[in-house]
Amino acid sequence: MNEQQKLPVYVVVMAGGVGSRFWPKSREGTPKQFLEIVGSGTMIQNTVERIRGLVPSSQIVVVTNERHKDLVLQQLPSIPAENILAEPVGRNTAPCIGLAAEWINQRAPESVMIVLPADHLIRNQEEFLRVLDRGVRVATENDALVTIGIHPTHPETGYGYIQFDDTTEGNPYHGDGVSRVRAFAEKPNLETAVQFIKSGDFVWNSGMFIWRTAVILQAIATYLPDLHTQLLNVVPTIGTPEFPKAVELAYGVIRSISIDYGVMEKAEQVFVVRGDFGWSDVGSWDEVVRLTPGDDEGNAFRGLVVAKDARGNYIDAGDKVIAAIGVDDLVIVSSGNAVLICRKGRSQDVKEIVDYLRRKQMNDLL
Amino acid sequence: MNEQQKLPVYVVVMAGGVGSRFWPKSREGTPKQFLEIVGSGTMIQNTVERIRGLVPSSQIVVVTNERHKDLVLQQLPSIPAENILAEPVGRNTAPCIGLAAEWINQRAPESVMIVLPADHLIRNQEEFLRVLDRGVRVATENDALVTIGIHPTHPETGYGYIQFDDTTEGNPYHGDGVSRVRAFAEKPNLETAVQFIKSGDFVWNSGMFIWRTAVILQAIATYLPDLHTQLLNVVPTIGTPEFPKAVELAYGVIRSISIDYGVMEKAEQVFVVRGDFGWSDVGSWDEVVRLTPGDDEGNAFRGLVVAKDARGNYIDAGDKVIAAIGVDDLVIVSSGNAVLICRKGRSQDVKEIVDYLRRKQMNDLL
Repeated sequence: MNEQQKLPVYVVVMAGGVGSRFWPKSREGTPKQFLEIVGSGTMIQNTVERIRGLVPSSQIVVVTNERHKDLVLQQLPSIPAENILAEPVGRNTAPCIGLAAEWINQRAPESVMIVLPADHLIRNQEEFLRVLDRGVRVATENDALVTIGIHPTHPETGYGYIQFDDTTEGNPYHGDGVSRVRAFAEKPNLETAVQFIKSGDFVWNSGMFIWRTAVILQAIATYLPDLHTQLLNVVPTIGTPEFPKAVELAYGVIRSISIDYGVMEKAEQVFVVRGDFGWSDVGSWDEVVRLTPGDDEGNAFRGLVVAKDARGNYIDAGDKVIAAIGVDDLVIVSSGNAVLICRKGRSQDVKEIVDYLRRKQMNDLL
Repeated sequence: MNEQQKLPVYVVVMAGGVGSRFWPKSREGTPKQFLEIVGSGTMIQNTVERIRGLVPSSQIVVVTNERHKDLVLQQLPSIPAENILAEPVGRNTAPCIGLAAEWINQRAPESVMIVLPADHLIRNQEEFLRVLDRGVRVATENDALVTIGIHPTHPETGYGYIQFDDTTEGNPYHGDGVSRVRAFAEKPNLETAVQFIKSGDFVWNSGMFIWRTAVILQAIATYLPDLHTQLLNVVPTIGTPEFPKAVELAYGVIRSISIDYGVMEKAEQVFVVRGDFGWSDVGSWDEVVRLTPGDDEGNAFRGLVVAKDARGNYIDAGDKVIAAIGVDDLVIVSSGNAVLICRKGRSQDVKEIVDYLRRKQMNDLL
């Protein structure tokens, strides 16, 4: 790889999530990434807005579920329709990334891919772009698989962790916030998370990646040969009307697997670029509450709320009006045909409510 | 008055209320009396159902606001349309009762009127009918104005009180739960209410009345001559197409006054029949909570509610679904475009919310 050559950069926005943790605002028809949850603009709009200065729209690829393709077109009118790749069904991150890589590879065999989840919050855009830039450099100079790690601020049990190698061995970037990866760790329990933080060589796994397109395709061929085979069936149809049908056939046999588990944990040349740019995966209503500044009485309101003697509440009225009298520390979300009233700190149970509605086949609530 | 003669009985249902205490379920278009709040059936349906055995439909008169006439027709299809008297505007109870009395007087000059608010709860129908029967007897045998008093169970500050004369003087019914009225008292403060209860000669003012039609009309002529004059303008139009216009003109000048203040407090021959029939005026959401039995966890749900670790809540989901997680002792009411979340014991503040919405002219919420 010629280090002087400046490769074209593509950004792949992974928007396949169908999370239920933001019910009743998130529904199967409008998952989290398509919602305005923190600040203004939907999460996918903010994700794309953030990297506007980095790449032209023609080099942004969005992978989403078939049923949300129109939503992507609608929310991101500047992205060319052919850059929106529809999956018939979610198969975790490896197939999604593989499909996008093949698509990009057809256009620009010599290119770098940045892979970003569509539904993360990033407060410090400048620092974020600096980290991406560093990642691109590491990926291209070393034919490396690069992952972005987040400086942990507390022993969070909701994130995966990355253990990095803090030595200089094989690391020309030591001291620059770049390390080789020693291990990937699944979401830990609290005790383990506390150990991770103490040890000082763990960062949060952000789920963001950077690599040369050819390098990730080679890694998939090596570590996920079945996926590779299926993708090869799709490749000749890219840019033709047969593409959706070929994807559907391939996804019928592709198994669900994450890129971390399927590739990153096994590959050799894996680096982590550590960043600190006000990141959150915004995983629950409680996290939204933490991210939303309150008024003098600790209340944070979205939409039309009338409150009396109410303190410490997060209230999203949706298209309704919510009147709150004498209530404290509640998360209240009204959306469409449903209202959630949840004590703060209990929003992890929202998933159970959705599971219940699903078991009862109350489809107009999902 | 011939005591042997059995006069026809008319029941006047006063359904003119536009109360805001049951917001968001009650709106200007559908006040409390037209809602299903406790048990099944709307309050006005239950009010009429209760006296079905007492009088035929043709002898039931409903007085309501013009804008709710269709609602009455719809909820009470058995009541003849001509028996529904529409007021262009509410002027408290005296004009309402006067209008109904004149209407009945045209049909049956020799008759007895029972006046019932449309929005009260009565649990013991049998005892209630016994009390009415006693009241009819007292009213006809003495040309008296009879009011129904309720045995107070606690020093309620939300009701008016009636002090009765516990002597036998001028009271042929002494010992039969019937007394002459000594005084009417407005809603007291708590201290006064406690005194009332202690004294033993106070009952709650139920706002129900019984009298001969001719007797109340005579009393109105005596104590409310202005009202009498206006009603006389209406009388010739009763049963003609000019009636609504005449009522509108009369109500343009009639002043707002209650029958208690305008007549009862001044009249001579006033009796109270004391009853104990599980009565409530259902004046607030908190009262609804008290009247609604809870489940093992103290929750009472109406509509579709999914709850987890929730205790002591009253939840009316309306046409939505409400999910409650980890919350206690709340009153939650969803209706149309609004949701109320109120700590138990604080429902008197609902009125303030409605006042606020009115000041802000948020008419689609009223």
